[in-house]
Amino acid sequence: MKFYDCRTAPSPRRVRIFMAEKDIEIPSVQVDLRNREQLTPAFRKINPYCTVPVLELDDGTCIRSSVGIQRYLEERFPEPPLLGRTPEEKGRISDLQWRIETDGFFAAAEMLRNTAQGMKGRALTGPVDYAQIPELAARGRKRMEVFLQDLEPLASNAEPYLCGKSFSVADIDGMIVVDFARRLHLEIDGVATRTWYEKVAARPSADA
Amino acid sequence: MKFYDCRTAPSPRRVRIFMAEKDIEIPSVQVDLRNREQLTPAFRKINPYCTVPVLELDDGTCIRSSVGIQRYLEERFPEPPLLGRTPEEKGRISDLQWRIETDGFFAAAEMLRNTAQGMKGRALTGPVDYAQIPELAARGRKRMEVFLQDLEPLASNAEPYLCGKSFSVADIDGMIVVDFARRLHLEIDGVATRTWYEKVAARPSADA
Repeated sequence: MKFYDCRTAPSPRRVRIFMAEKDIEIPSVQVDLRNREQLTPAFRKINPYCTVPVLELDDGTCIRSSVGIQRYLEERFPEPPLLGRTPEEKGRISDLQWRIETDGFFAAAEMLRNTAQGMKGRALTGPVDYAQIPELAARGRKRMEVFLQDLEPLASNAEPYLCGKSFSVADIDGMIVVDFARRLHLEIDGVATRTWYEKVAARPSADA
Repeated sequence: MKFYDCRTAPSPRRVRIFMAEKDIEIPSVQVDLRNREQLTPAFRKINPYCTVPVLELDDGTCIRSSVGIQRYLEERFPEPPLLGRTPEEKGRISDLQWRIETDGFFAAAEMLRNTAQGMKGRALTGPVDYAQIPELAARGRKRMEVFLQDLEPLASNAEPYLCGKSFSVADIDGMIVVDFARRLHLEIDGVATRTWYEKVAARPSADA
């Protein structure tokens, strides 16, 4: 297997932490997003959607989303489970992961990509150029504020993790969105959010 | 269990077809989205994110996304598997489902919700009102055109389904995005896409 990574991007970190929790080591290749290596013909052969992370399996199959890679790795390396043990846990974790991605990651990306100077004409990832839309940057900020508000009751009910007694992918993805928010200079006001965040960010895997 | 549904909306149909393929029957409640029942205090208790589908389990737990509900039902009612059998299938199906949702569903919603008269101030689902952005409607249309182009090689490689020999959730979600595109008066030009679509749309479950 081969893992296409970029140390500075939030999405591949979702997979790196997932692998660290399972103590999996896979040879990795750094893709230089700053110099737009993802748009080169060579990388498009790996991923025509021009994004990282990508996991290339030994038969050449490429899995091109964090969610897909995490699911594959969970099945190949079940211990410790990060996507749940029982049907109910699996459903709840998948549900919360979807929520964190849709309301958190995508909102943060909306804010960043419609604002950053270096992302002019690159308001979405992928092979097609899309212009920045200032109103969308403002909407992304508002959505992130709402996401952080909504996170507070979830963190407040954590026992002690977002989906119960066991650390899960929801904690990984949630922590990365909080880091993304900090990078965007948003305040993390919620007391329960901060307590939960400090716990998960203190795990050795957070450095991955 | 109780299933909160809306017959006219695309998202709960993802779950209805999934249940039909597994021959599961769950008592359902229709939520009247046209009259904004999803925003009422009573429904907010079920789902503070104000969307359908929702699956309420017998202990009161609510799963509030199509993806989460499908995962739960797959674990509870494994046959026939719709999320894959082997680790590789599970990874590939999850990956393609993510792609179809992100590049297809979300693009179609972007186009519809930023255009429709009846959705003024409702450019996103959920409890917060967001204004329509005309540039975003145009971007949604472009993204849908790109999605339909990208679907053609996937349909062309179908054997005969999008993820191999077995019908999967990728076929369900893909078909629903194509139906969404038709409702938005987009042309389905791809020959392989049309052949694949006709096959999956002819299944009895498609009426669900």
